[in-house]
Amino acid sequence: MAPRWRIREAEEGDCGHILRLIRELAEYEKLSEQVQMSEEALRADGFGGNPFYHCLVAEVLPAPGEPQGPRVVGYGLYYFIYSTWKGRNVYLEDIYVTPECRGQGIASKIIKKVAQVALDQGCSQFRLAVLDWNQRAMALYKALGAQDLTETEGWHAFRFEGEAMRKLAGNELYTQRGAQTEDQETHTVQLWNQAPRDHILFNNISETSMFLCY
Amino acid sequence: MAPRWRIREAEEGDCGHILRLIRELAEYEKLSEQVQMSEEALRADGFGGNPFYHCLVAEVLPAPGEPQGPRVVGYGLYYFIYSTWKGRNVYLEDIYVTPECRGQGIASKIIKKVAQVALDQGCSQFRLAVLDWNQRAMALYKALGAQDLTETEGWHAFRFEGEAMRKLAGNELYTQRGAQTEDQETHTVQLWNQAPRDHILFNNISETSMFLCY
Repeated sequence: MAPRWRIREAEEGDCGHILRLIRELAEYEKLSEQVQMSEEALRADGFGGNPFYHCLVAEVLPAPGEPQGPRVVGYGLYYFIYSTWKGRNVYLEDIYVTPECRGQGIASKIIKKVAQVALDQGCSQFRLAVLDWNQRAMALYKALGAQDLTETEGWHAFRFEGEAMRKLAGNELYTQRGAQTEDQETHTVQLWNQAPRDHILFNNISETSMFLCY
Repeated sequence: MAPRWRIREAEEGDCGHILRLIRELAEYEKLSEQVQMSEEALRADGFGGNPFYHCLVAEVLPAPGEPQGPRVVGYGLYYFIYSTWKGRNVYLEDIYVTPECRGQGIASKIIKKVAQVALDQGCSQFRLAVLDWNQRAMALYKALGAQDLTETEGWHAFRFEGEAMRKLAGNELYTQRGAQTEDQETHTVQLWNQAPRDHILFNNISETSMFLCY
């Protein structure tokens, strides 16, 4: 008998399996050195009172008489984002099916479920990201109706992290803080112009290029 | 006297100004036909009990004796996302400063504030997206320490919307639904293989390319 599978909402007890698949996906993406995730964090972040993410899992059901239980073989992890053009939307952060279970329509079904969730929640879009060498995944998404916005509109993904984040947050060389609170602080252009520039942060950028369109 | 400005958290009464700037930004990005946002939606979505986004505004303060109040000239709209590699993170959806107020460090200050918020909330990253022809914005982000992940790792942004979403959500041609609930439904590979393919969705994809790595 052909294996039966189903898609269901993840439960807290699935976090160990989800983490295993997160690591498999990162390895497939050749970026596994970037994974800093634990089962405990997945449990706390996804299953508290105010979950930071939602997750669907695909599981293969045992054949009648097989002693083992269902086996988690894929997942789709998503959360709600906000477009200033379209309002509340969904972002599908990860979608993955373990190699031996591909070709059964599991990933397509996860994508369909995410589309259903999005529409049920009043969202008109959902977004995801894919690596440019993963041409077969791109072909699937396009076949299912997605647009490649990097290709059609030229969007590039940027990320601040680590040391850059800390420098950004801590660098106050050209700001003035008085008695105001952090959120009420006042700056004057004159003082800013007189203050020393941060040559660490700005050594690649000319004075005129500060007149930017953001 | 040089104009004074400050960055502060947005209040509900700022939504009209934020919407004006959202439209200015979309016009600058040459994508203004995509804006379907109202002041009412911004109010409801950002200032209820469970806000979908957070926003910083930049305002120019009146000089002593000037009759008008502060003027909102820029904004940074962000929300929390979830990385399966690094946990909770921040996404800066929009950052914009109106043309006559550029060159004063306002956008850099908004980015710094977002970095502070992210670190305060235990996030190790924040992400944003930029159009490839906006080279000066890209230069600023890089100078501030961001990586262009599309350039360095090859990430492409994909989006499902509109008719594609509805087709995805409603297309059940190759699934079987029995008495199970929506989230518990069970599929068999055999039935899937016997069912008619959806030639609308799959007409660009070969049978073998269904064996995908997602």
